Amino acid sequence: MGFELTVFEGLSAFPVTPSNSDGMVDCDHFGRLVNHLNRDGVSSIGVLGSTGGYMYLTTEERSRAIHTAVDAAGTMPVLAGIGALRTNDVITNVKNAEKAGAQGLLLAPVSYLPLTEADVDSLVQDVVNATDLPICFYNNPGTTKFNLDENQLVRLANAGTIDAVKNPPAPEGDFVGQIDRLRATVPNDFCLGYSGDASIAGALEAGADAWYSVLAGTLPDIAIELWNARNDVNQLKAINERLAPMWKLFDEYGSIRIIHEIADMVGLGNVKLPSPLLPLGTATRQNIEQALNSIEAIEDQFV
Amino acid sequence: MGFELTVFEGLSAFPVTPSNSDGMVDCDHFGRLVNHLNRDGVSSIGVLGSTGGYMYLTTEERSRAIHTAVDAAGTMPVLAGIGALRTNDVITNVKNAEKAGAQGLLLAPVSYLPLTEADVDSLVQDVVNATDLPICFYNNPGTTKFNLDENQLVRLANAGTIDAVKNPPAPEGDFVGQIDRLRATVPNDFCLGYSGDASIAGALEAGADAWYSVLAGTLPDIAIELWNARNDVNQLKAINERLAPMWKLFDEYGSIRIIHEIADMVGLGNVKLPSPLLPLGTATRQNIEQALNSIEAIEDQFV
Repeated sequence: MGFELTVFEGLSAFPVTPSNSDGMVDCDHFGRLVNHLNRDGVSSIGVLGSTGGYMYLTTEERSRAIHTAVDAAGTMPVLAGIGALRTNDVITNVKNAEKAGAQGLLLAPVSYLPLTEADVDSLVQDVVNATDLPICFYNNPGTTKFNLDENQLVRLANAGTIDAVKNPPAPEGDFVGQIDRLRATVPNDFCLGYSGDASIAGALEAGADAWYSVLAGTLPDIAIELWNARNDVNQLKAINERLAPMWKLFDEYGSIRIIHEIADMVGLGNVKLPSPLLPLGTATRQNIEQALNSIEAIEDQFV
Repeated sequence: MGFELTVFEGLSAFPVTPSNSDGMVDCDHFGRLVNHLNRDGVSSIGVLGSTGGYMYLTTEERSRAIHTAVDAAGTMPVLAGIGALRTNDVITNVKNAEKAGAQGLLLAPVSYLPLTEADVDSLVQDVVNATDLPICFYNNPGTTKFNLDENQLVRLANAGTIDAVKNPPAPEGDFVGQIDRLRATVPNDFCLGYSGDASIAGALEAGADAWYSVLAGTLPDIAIELWNARNDVNQLKAINERLAPMWKLFDEYGSIRIIHEIADMVGLGNVKLPSPLLPLGTATRQNIEQALNSIEAIEDQFV
């Protein structure tokens, strides 16, 4: 590193978004969840990512949520998810995020009909034409069905259209190989970030510029510990070992379903996923409690 | 066959839905497209399926489209897509489809976060609780990321919660095996239907109860020819051979992108997919024209 990177660098904490069964955001509750993340070690707050259920909320509710987050975040930069099925809705989300004071945009190539590489190029260009805010490409094939391959990533990065990437775990866990290949070909100030908490230790050890973290959005302290240990392999492994039972649950049920249960368990309040996404069963909740015990996570700063 | 089947049986024609760049449906144009399908050999009109771009339209626009379709369809039954990411929106779509006079519902388990079998069970039950209309499970893993496996299908069919299935092509093209397995275990009046025009001849030869057809929604005559030949293998193969260049394009680019180009080419008017879905290029359009020549499709009844 040593270059000046974008607002996308560092540990970005992705909170859940409380809403009722009609999809109306509880802004009071959401503001407190965002405020809870304003602490040393967190670099930005990523609202309306997959964890924040952006695709289940209307354009209007998403706008309310971003306003709330920016107010609650204080001096902490807010990154906002702008993805939608239609480009015109994406552009509305861009404008609303700008108005609300978001400092960076998270662009996922959301699809119903799978998108082609050319479709995604056109989407990115339309967003670039609509805003001066920096853009992080939110590469999440498990939800969007589109995988940004390294060639397209390098092309977009060098065209100056995107400033960062939030990649899923590197193929076969080879973060070193992927980061080396990309660093050699993207601009120096391009931010190479990863999501996928369960295998993030590998990305941190390999020198990723950012961790876009589900865990940090609800249990920031343990996530900060892991992030801060990124240059000390032994320490990193020791902390990651405490998290192993949690990562196992993330892998088995998906981090988003698990983190919604955790928010309730640690006293951050009841936050439901929208139907038809069911809550997890009693046995799984017991496993989550055991995983929490092994990391001794107590979010006692929440008010 | 020989049992009394549901409204889902037969050749169901799925038209495109004309809309502007803001997602407002052109009801005049749409009504004419639906009316164009009201002819001998078509059993029902399937509006707001994947071909009809349901996921790119608001609840309100979808309601307008179903009203238009029912008016334009005359005595022809209208089947309406009700899928949405949130169950509360699905239920709103159910109520709107009922009010508009749809005679059957097409329920796709749409997802952003992938759904579990239990999530989908709960979604189906919520729809059943909200309506007396018959339900066809719209099994389309390529867009929903959820594959209804045969065990769950049989369970739902025997619970009386779903009345039909719109399945994608059988695994490895073994329609005979899949239909034999399912017929032996679902109720006699359950409708086993297929989509996937490019391999539909195999389903017809194997005795499928229904063809949910992209082609029929824009080029009904050739689709009716193929459907009517289903009990005459030689005739079926001869017609299917004429369609081979078309099926090749469907496989390569997806039937939905191709059919939008065809609507324009055969004089049904310009119908765009929403951005970021790009139109196909000049070379592909030339291939489509050649495929049209080989089936001699002229939709000269359109006014």
